[in-house]
Amino acid sequence: MIAIDWGTSNFRAYRLAADGAVLDKRSAPLGILAVKDGRFAEALESQVRDWLDAGGTPVIMSGMIGSRQGWKEAPYAHCPAGLPEIAAGMVRVEWNRRSAWIAPGLTCRDQSGIADVMRGEEVQILGALDALREPMAWICLPGTHSKWARVEAQRITYFATHMTGEVFAVMKAHSILGRMMSDGTHDMAAFEAGLQRAGDDGGLLHHLFGVRTRGLFGELAAEHAAAYLSGMLIGHELRSVPSQTGVVYVLGAQYLAQLYLHALRIRGFQPSLLDPDAVVKGLARLAALVRD
Amino acid sequence: MIAIDWGTSNFRAYRLAADGAVLDKRSAPLGILAVKDGRFAEALESQVRDWLDAGGTPVIMSGMIGSRQGWKEAPYAHCPAGLPEIAAGMVRVEWNRRSAWIAPGLTCRDQSGIADVMRGEEVQILGALDALREPMAWICLPGTHSKWARVEAQRITYFATHMTGEVFAVMKAHSILGRMMSDGTHDMAAFEAGLQRAGDDGGLLHHLFGVRTRGLFGELAAEHAAAYLSGMLIGHELRSVPSQTGVVYVLGAQYLAQLYLHALRIRGFQPSLLDPDAVVKGLARLAALVRD
Repeated sequence: MIAIDWGTSNFRAYRLAADGAVLDKRSAPLGILAVKDGRFAEALESQVRDWLDAGGTPVIMSGMIGSRQGWKEAPYAHCPAGLPEIAAGMVRVEWNRRSAWIAPGLTCRDQSGIADVMRGEEVQILGALDALREPMAWICLPGTHSKWARVEAQRITYFATHMTGEVFAVMKAHSILGRMMSDGTHDMAAFEAGLQRAGDDGGLLHHLFGVRTRGLFGELAAEHAAAYLSGMLIGHELRSVPSQTGVVYVLGAQYLAQLYLHALRIRGFQPSLLDPDAVVKGLARLAALVRD
Repeated sequence: MIAIDWGTSNFRAYRLAADGAVLDKRSAPLGILAVKDGRFAEALESQVRDWLDAGGTPVIMSGMIGSRQGWKEAPYAHCPAGLPEIAAGMVRVEWNRRSAWIAPGLTCRDQSGIADVMRGEEVQILGALDALREPMAWICLPGTHSKWARVEAQRITYFATHMTGEVFAVMKAHSILGRMMSDGTHDMAAFEAGLQRAGDDGGLLHHLFGVRTRGLFGELAAEHAAAYLSGMLIGHELRSVPSQTGVVYVLGAQYLAQLYLHALRIRGFQPSLLDPDAVVKGLARLAALVRD
């Protein structure tokens, strides 16, 4: 089979054996924003035509490829959802006597009725389910838009998105705070100071201004200010997660996942790291449920 | 005397009679960022030479003109500070046998030892002191960087800055949230919905993402999204202010001050509006204490 993680910025393809072992993999900066005029079939063929010619089926895709801006919109599945519910929401695309499946995203509503969405992360979580040993656990997927998902009995029952990574990026690039930052290696002491600051009263909008005043008074070096801001924002995210108790898993790429693990430990959690390539396993599990 | 409110973006000058009455006023987009090579004396003369020639003294200035990027740095006075302490911190600049005074900014530290600063707002507060009838009151000065100052017995004893306005501006201009916003008149229902959202659990970083999801599901019109975001951010500011009790005054320009008054009332405060031109009175009070 062929598994494809097709996001906003990147295209990642895996050729899998029947037992799910990765035979080959390829990636390209060919996210959906880089595909013009809806030419997704051409884009896919340009990357993995040889695999398709060799009879690699089924083709299973997840991520923003199923969004309104993607190949074909795959309407969101609703929480609670596990493997059967997400598999049931897959939509099929066809071209040149070939076909592929796109996994749906997932949506839920909180107590106030405000909706949240994910697209791609739900398949990563499906791939990680086997590693969860508790009847209830939280999975944190750090990123531009961090996701916190509650998993109970093999189903995602609730999740919340935090714009932590994007707020960091826009404040660094476009606010007065960025003007006092210079490049530097990530300073862990500054990160921890920001994390601690997030625990104070006053709220995030106030804490942010402290990045400026600490710089103004020479109490925060320009090359440490980004790490301080990062710790502050991650600290506010952790302060707001739905539960301060329970088992927490982190599913993410190396560097950011390590930062979150460190922050979670300081905050009193005992987090475990999940396989960052869980999406491949999740796509393989979905593949087993479709018939071409 | 000549009173000058000289900020980052704007220059505002007032010619005052001995009793503080405004005889004339002028303004220009000649903030300190628009003055090149430290030519502040030239900039000042370009705006009010005739007033200076007519013997308008003393000249009293406040705002970012006293910052490190301004004409001459006027070191911050420390809380608690009232008229005598702020007057004592004024610094003098001289050019062509003329001179002017620059008011210092104000600084304080919170319980965690993190500093906060203001520069200009302290003179607005001095000008508003007469209007406060209570032994303790909070003054909210809305803006790019909102200030909340606690005033006790004619002195500013504490204050906190919230980056509410700047976070609004950068998220609207540079984040994924801005991409789903279109221009529109300020929708008060959307503003109030954002304000209410800020009272929920989950934290600001999570609530922000709701601007996107509500738009995605057609529950928030593109032309109302900015008002919703504005209400959410102001709501988070109000949620974090140092005291939920006590008398609150709002000191600011018409439109934003009215928004804050509305939000404060919904949150159960009974706010009063102060004269938005209090800076002129504050500068006049300082003028009475200097000798040229």
